[in-house]
Amino acid sequence: MWLRTSCDMNFDIPEPTPFILMLRMRSGAQQWVASEKFVLSPSVPVFEFTDIYGNLCQRLIAPAGRFLIYTEAEVMTADQVDEEPGAPFVEIDFLPDSALIYMLPSRYCESDRFNQMATEITAGLLPGYDQVKAIETWLCQSIRYEGGGSDIPLSAVEVNRNQQGVCRDFAHLGIALCRSISIPARMVVGYLHGLHPMDLHAWMEAYVGGRWYTFDAAGTDQKGGYVAIGYGRDAADVAIFNQFGPAVYPVSQSITVAQIEESINPNA
Amino acid sequence: MWLRTSCDMNFDIPEPTPFILMLRMRSGAQQWVASEKFVLSPSVPVFEFTDIYGNLCQRLIAPAGRFLIYTEAEVMTADQVDEEPGAPFVEIDFLPDSALIYMLPSRYCESDRFNQMATEITAGLLPGYDQVKAIETWLCQSIRYEGGGSDIPLSAVEVNRNQQGVCRDFAHLGIALCRSISIPARMVVGYLHGLHPMDLHAWMEAYVGGRWYTFDAAGTDQKGGYVAIGYGRDAADVAIFNQFGPAVYPVSQSITVAQIEESINPNA
Amino acid sequence: MWLRTSCDMNFDIPEPTPFILMLRMRSGAQQWVASEKFVLSPSVPVFEFTDIYGNLCQRLIAPAGRFLIYTEAEVMTADQVDEEPGAPFVEIDFLPDSALIYMLPSRYCESDRFNQMATEITAGLLPGYDQVKAIETWLCQSIRYEGGGSDIPLSAVEVNRNQQGVCRDFAHLGIALCRSISIPARMVVGYLHGLHPMDLHAWMEAYVGGRWYTFDAAGTDQKGGYVAIGYGRDAADVAIFNQFGPAVYPVSQSITVAQIEESINPNA
Amino acid sequence: MWLRTSCDMNFDIPEPTPFILMLRMRSGAQQWVASEKFVLSPSVPVFEFTDIYGNLCQRLIAPAGRFLIYTEAEVMTADQVDEEPGAPFVEIDFLPDSALIYMLPSRYCESDRFNQMATEITAGLLPGYDQVKAIETWLCQSIRYEGGGSDIPLSAVEVNRNQQGVCRDFAHLGIALCRSISIPARMVVGYLHGLHPMDLHAWMEAYVGGRWYTFDAAGTDQKGGYVAIGYGRDAADVAIFNQFGPAVYPVSQSITVAQIEESINPNA
Repeated sequence: MWLRTSCDMNFDIPEPTPFILMLRMRSGAQQWVASEKFVLSPSVPVFEFTDIYGNLCQRLIAPAGRFLIYTEAEVMTADQVDEEPGAPFVEIDFLPDSALIYMLPSRYCESDRFNQMATEITAGLLPGYDQVKAIETWLCQSIRYEGGGSDIPLSAVEVNRNQQGVCRDFAHLGIALCRSISIPARMVVGYLHGLHPMDLHAWMEAYVGGRWYTFDAAGTDQKGGYVAIGYGRDAADVAIFNQFGPAVYPVSQSITVAQIEESINPNA
Repeated sequence: MWLRTSCDMNFDIPEPTPFILMLRMRSGAQQWVASEKFVLSPSVPVFEFTDIYGNLCQRLIAPAGRFLIYTEAEVMTADQVDEEPGAPFVEIDFLPDSALIYMLPSRYCESDRFNQMATEITAGLLPGYDQVKAIETWLCQSIRYEGGGSDIPLSAVEVNRNQQGVCRDFAHLGIALCRSISIPARMVVGYLHGLHPMDLHAWMEAYVGGRWYTFDAAGTDQKGGYVAIGYGRDAADVAIFNQFGPAVYPVSQSITVAQIEESINPNA
Repeated sequence: MWLRTSCDMNFDIPEPTPFILMLRMRSGAQQWVASEKFVLSPSVPVFEFTDIYGNLCQRLIAPAGRFLIYTEAEVMTADQVDEEPGAPFVEIDFLPDSALIYMLPSRYCESDRFNQMATEITAGLLPGYDQVKAIETWLCQSIRYEGGGSDIPLSAVEVNRNQQGVCRDFAHLGIALCRSISIPARMVVGYLHGLHPMDLHAWMEAYVGGRWYTFDAAGTDQKGGYVAIGYGRDAADVAIFNQFGPAVYPVSQSITVAQIEESINPNA
Repeated sequence: MWLRTSCDMNFDIPEPTPFILMLRMRSGAQQWVASEKFVLSPSVPVFEFTDIYGNLCQRLIAPAGRFLIYTEAEVMTADQVDEEPGAPFVEIDFLPDSALIYMLPSRYCESDRFNQMATEITAGLLPGYDQVKAIETWLCQSIRYEGGGSDIPLSAVEVNRNQQGVCRDFAHLGIALCRSISIPARMVVGYLHGLHPMDLHAWMEAYVGGRWYTFDAAGTDQKGGYVAIGYGRDAADVAIFNQFGPAVYPVSQSITVAQIEESINPNA
């Protein structure tokens, strides 16, 4: 399906503040970015770099006063994410080098504390895809979705203690469980068509059967319509904006995702 | 100034053909990409990767038949490129690691053959920016601009023998001369506002005084309006499209660059 | 000073087990590796890769049974680490891209929880080196060194609660405090001449005044003699060995660091 | 087999001269570096970085006067390089991103000029390994090995014109021929056991059947005993030493490669 996404964030900046943004999506196996639009108002110099996960990041200094960041994109994405029951566990020695970092514990995914729990959840299952699916199912059934959480991310240990959370929390706990049984897992932040209420979304991918598969336990019935913006180990890596100095949150934020007709060449 | 660029290429593909494209510009110190649009017709799966120079590249298989690639962008770029007479030569031991590759000879820039010539052209000058400026001036005065060259790039040695060439040829010879006196130099391919006749353009950057400066000897009087698409050692690295198998050239290609008003947030 | 280091680890491996090792030091501004020696017994195929932090890592499958890893190196390192009281805080917008990742919270350094505490510890001080020095001093005075801790690393929050720890714990808390006031900080694992009892050591580096400086609060009076093996965000990234599957610890481990005469060319 | 290699280079440096060295081998699928030793005399500060091909490079300033670089290594390498007649050509769209750069023409491998010649040499053969083997055989039969060539590398076009060359020349022509028929090919510099007269050696690898295979047309009957130091597109990328400023060649250079018993842990 073709989607048009937009993200509109307004800030009141008390003093000039450095930001690191993650505004530009990448085209890949699972999505094709046909158009992008960025507005910064007021306009400021931007320096772009590629972070260690391959995300395109933008550095800038937000000036004092009202600061607006607006992005819009037209993206083709799968109607339904790939599923592959039975896809096997990849032995560590056959994992690509680039997947290894997604095996390690990270700030919000203390995978070193979850081996026993993950072993119980996946008992008796074929190693690989089926284990991750069981973790996803367990999360759906055991963790209550509770919107409007804190601005500060919770870690997998905290989420497991609370037994409730938002999409980010489901992803953190799912990732920690996967890694604890040696399945590489990473966090994705982006858009999801049909999400209600509409907002930025977070989910996870796990590496089984020789590729990354999408999993999302956060109480949604969507089969597809995912648009990835950034990839990382957990929420610490994939903030849409990272800002330094006194905390600054958007005074307003508006996200839209709408299905559209295919983008057409005006000259064709 | 704000520019809208477009590139429209039509191919007649005899058999399915792998392409590597360089469609997506980067935002950086010298330009800000406010919007991008890509159309591939027919639509095909695209895989994006970052090459060793930091360019965003797209891999795809063009299907047999008519294949169209259209890109459009709105970009803010400098009215006038920075100049810094007197900017000093950077001693090799203070060059950043990332600049070192631009010191080596490459396919079309046989810098190992030009030391004597470059030494003569820059005799008596302050090492650094002034040397590069002298090379640019020498190219303007000595090499005749002659449009409509071959599809196959010539190397600096060949250009120097011919004493004529197109923008790409000027850049290759200029780069070879700079590198031969230990000044890192790289090729840039992109758009130039006001170019006549309008086409894709190529120019060079040299690393002096601790940063990259733009130089362009190709017979144009433009002071600014440059939009970079890709960076590399020479034309072998920065093809807008690389295609494998039987050679396929666009049956038609149209480039436009127009000055526009600043891109505005529709919601602002 | 010239040092000869060695690390001898013996494992009893119950079943073939994938390892990721960090055996090879890098030569850099602060150390020169004049020789290296590696023994794996029994000998097995090894694949080397460079991780996202620049460390050289080795992948292998340890066979069942007794498995021995021995490394030895001769290294020139500073008698005294550089100190630079007054070195200024680097504004975020002037940090190199590569330092940004060391600003984010990580598995064992929950820097998002320490801003108030770090602000108190560094109150009234010149931003930069002097703040880090104050954090180091505070750690020395407030956290009790207590050898023989757990095999599982504790996080900065846990270390701060316990008010005691080993070298790794001091580093984690120090790193979290630095990052919480926007000073990039990273973990280093390696050797330290004169450490008693001798073991692998961990310390931290902070980025102030335009470069990385060494800090080590772990109760030692050493002024220099540091040999770095690996760099990372915290202990999750810089394990000398990471092993997957059922936990396997060395049945014996022996570390030596001895001062030697300069390595001499046998042919000179 | 286990080999001990050494390289001893003496320079008379007229004025302080920046060098970029490639001293440290990597362990990989085809070799295991059990020990390394480096001597620089006089001792100078060294900064190590990883270049875009993954080679470990060292930067230093050689002081005026006699300067000696000595390296020694103990390496396990294959008695016989892998051969795989029939290994298929890899379609461009299935090549790993990292192989693509080895498809492009480079300074000494003008692959854009050799398509017709390569097509004739490989006429009627199964695409892939067999084509590369035919190119290797053609080189052996058509190009005369002639030691003691110039210090300045020749390009494939020049080698083909001369119909003679040294190992480096054979590799350049072979690489150009492979790339011209869309087979990724790269240059390797290193040691070869049994080479006569002993010297540094250069050969090529081609990517067929999903991996890199070794080919060496340079008139040697060796089946194995290769020790790779560096990889690159051609000789411009894999100089054991690159030096800037007035050309400086070793006043003496001595290479040894000797078969040894397996390296043993002194403590085992």
